[in-house]
Amino acid sequence: MNEQWKIKNPKIKTLDCTIRDGGLVNSHRFSFEFVLALYRACADAKVDYIEIGYKNSDKIFAPDEFGDWKYCKEDVIRRIVDDAPEAKIKLSCMVDAGKSEWKTDVVPCAQSPLDMIRVAFYAHQVDEALAMIDDAWNKGYEVSANLMAVTALEEPILDSVLQRLSTSPASVFVIVDSFGAIIPSQAEYLTQKYLNYAQDSGKEVGMHAHNNLQLAFANTLKSIQCGATRVDATVGGLGRGAGNCPMELLLGAVNVEQYRIRPIYKLLQQEFIALRQQIEWGPFAEFMLTGQHNVHPKAAIDARKDLDTRDRVCDLFDQLEAQK
Amino acid sequence: MNEQWKIKNPKIKTLDCTIRDGGLVNSHRFSFEFVLALYRACADAKVDYIEIGYKNSDKIFAPDEFGDWKYCKEDVIRRIVDDAPEAKIKLSCMVDAGKSEWKTDVVPCAQSPLDMIRVAFYAHQVDEALAMIDDAWNKGYEVSANLMAVTALEEPILDSVLQRLSTSPASVFVIVDSFGAIIPSQAEYLTQKYLNYAQDSGKEVGMHAHNNLQLAFANTLKSIQCGATRVDATVGGLGRGAGNCPMELLLGAVNVEQYRIRPIYKLLQQEFIALRQQIEWGPFAEFMLTGQHNVHPKAAIDARKDLDTRDRVCDLFDQLEAQK
Repeated sequence: MNEQWKIKNPKIKTLDCTIRDGGLVNSHRFSFEFVLALYRACADAKVDYIEIGYKNSDKIFAPDEFGDWKYCKEDVIRRIVDDAPEAKIKLSCMVDAGKSEWKTDVVPCAQSPLDMIRVAFYAHQVDEALAMIDDAWNKGYEVSANLMAVTALEEPILDSVLQRLSTSPASVFVIVDSFGAIIPSQAEYLTQKYLNYAQDSGKEVGMHAHNNLQLAFANTLKSIQCGATRVDATVGGLGRGAGNCPMELLLGAVNVEQYRIRPIYKLLQQEFIALRQQIEWGPFAEFMLTGQHNVHPKAAIDARKDLDTRDRVCDLFDQLEAQK
Repeated sequence: MNEQWKIKNPKIKTLDCTIRDGGLVNSHRFSFEFVLALYRACADAKVDYIEIGYKNSDKIFAPDEFGDWKYCKEDVIRRIVDDAPEAKIKLSCMVDAGKSEWKTDVVPCAQSPLDMIRVAFYAHQVDEALAMIDDAWNKGYEVSANLMAVTALEEPILDSVLQRLSTSPASVFVIVDSFGAIIPSQAEYLTQKYLNYAQDSGKEVGMHAHNNLQLAFANTLKSIQCGATRVDATVGGLGRGAGNCPMELLLGAVNVEQYRIRPIYKLLQQEFIALRQQIEWGPFAEFMLTGQHNVHPKAAIDARKDLDTRDRVCDLFDQLEAQK
């Protein structure tokens, strides 16, 4: 990359969500050592936040089916923090509307190592999301509102949700491209739209991109150029389906004098080669297809799970076309 | 992808260079059947051009080390065309400055199935390139000027080469991102620069992107939005190192009512799964590193060839940093 095209903007804050989004690939069964190594690497790289998992309900998600990072109990998080006292990085946790016991499981910020709560919700869950945002804010957290599957929403509904969020105490609105269906011109449009609802009250806009169309990094750059200052990425692009914007690409292009990219490549070399032999993620053609069709990646994930359907991308194309 | 963001522009022409650029991965050892299947699929998809290989010198490249598509002898090309008489697609061949016997191996267009000659050259070879362009044009071909490794050039040298090309009979100038180092804002800048030298004489501008930074598709879209009308892509993104812009992504976003994407997915299913077990390409972290450092992918290709150095991406990072 030629130096003059790299982006400098001291307002940008990066968030690593490798464990949280990547956990959707392996049921959040990351070892304590892996999470600790990631935590240290991100802190070394001067990444601003690390999102360590979900606070989801152990009544809805049976604990024998998921790893610790699906629930992020306070004592588990504290073990990570205590084991790496040198690490200076803010901690985030995602809380899902409809899937969490947020009233009790989100403890007062003063009692938790967490700094930020990100509330994830679909448009029809906006009432609960607003209550969750108030609750987390009242407990002392920085709060982010992450409206999912934005490309599935009709424009008036999106406007209505953003309008309601604009008077909430959430200080960040994240554009969440759950289906990996956004192209950069749409990222520009959405960033401007979100900013219209956010800016007046001093809120920031973020981008959480998926890589179905190999556009996660491009959409993230485009959002930044349009005024987004909170951007998500994951080491190796690890994340559900096609994965996310790779942290190693983001840190190579944005505020390169502030961030350090070597710890990310070191972690890739030390931890991710082995991981790639256990689990799969990335922009396989099945995920391109669901992104092109603007649908949830479930059909692609299912197709790749089974050896009889994996790589039969023309069959999946026909299936998705028939469902149009 | 939401429908309203898809691009419509009847002036755009797509070129498949799967065999030509992909041949840099396997020494152009594609079977006749594979090339025929690709030729048919691209014609079915209504892709505008297919670039079937190089016309390189068999004195410089020993024929026992390379497949037919390194040389593209007229009789070999004609076998493909004759075996698929139903296919309506223009044929292109690339000719390298310094590596071809262009005076003799490029035969008069009237005697060849080829429609277009693309002259590939580095800036220091511009004199020969201009002679090659004149020669091919005088023989009756449409001619494209493909100045390689644009990100390695200082601005005055790039301007000087474009200035000299502007009075040549080449009707297309292609931005060639050999190192995969371009980001979309630079693609915009370069497209406008190339257009400045091309437009007055009715020439078109094209984009040949590499995927080191997972930006090949994004850069291609950006160039189109800035006025480029000739765009390269390859099935499955097959191409040297990190590969190219995937045809299946391009045809899903551009002129979707004109192109047919299904034949590309069909070919992926029928031919590319097996191919992936024989050869490797794609945006592995080694290629990100050479793209970020704006150097030829050779160091990454070498690192991935040897099991002792493959996936040791932090070691490669250190090596490239030391060479800065």
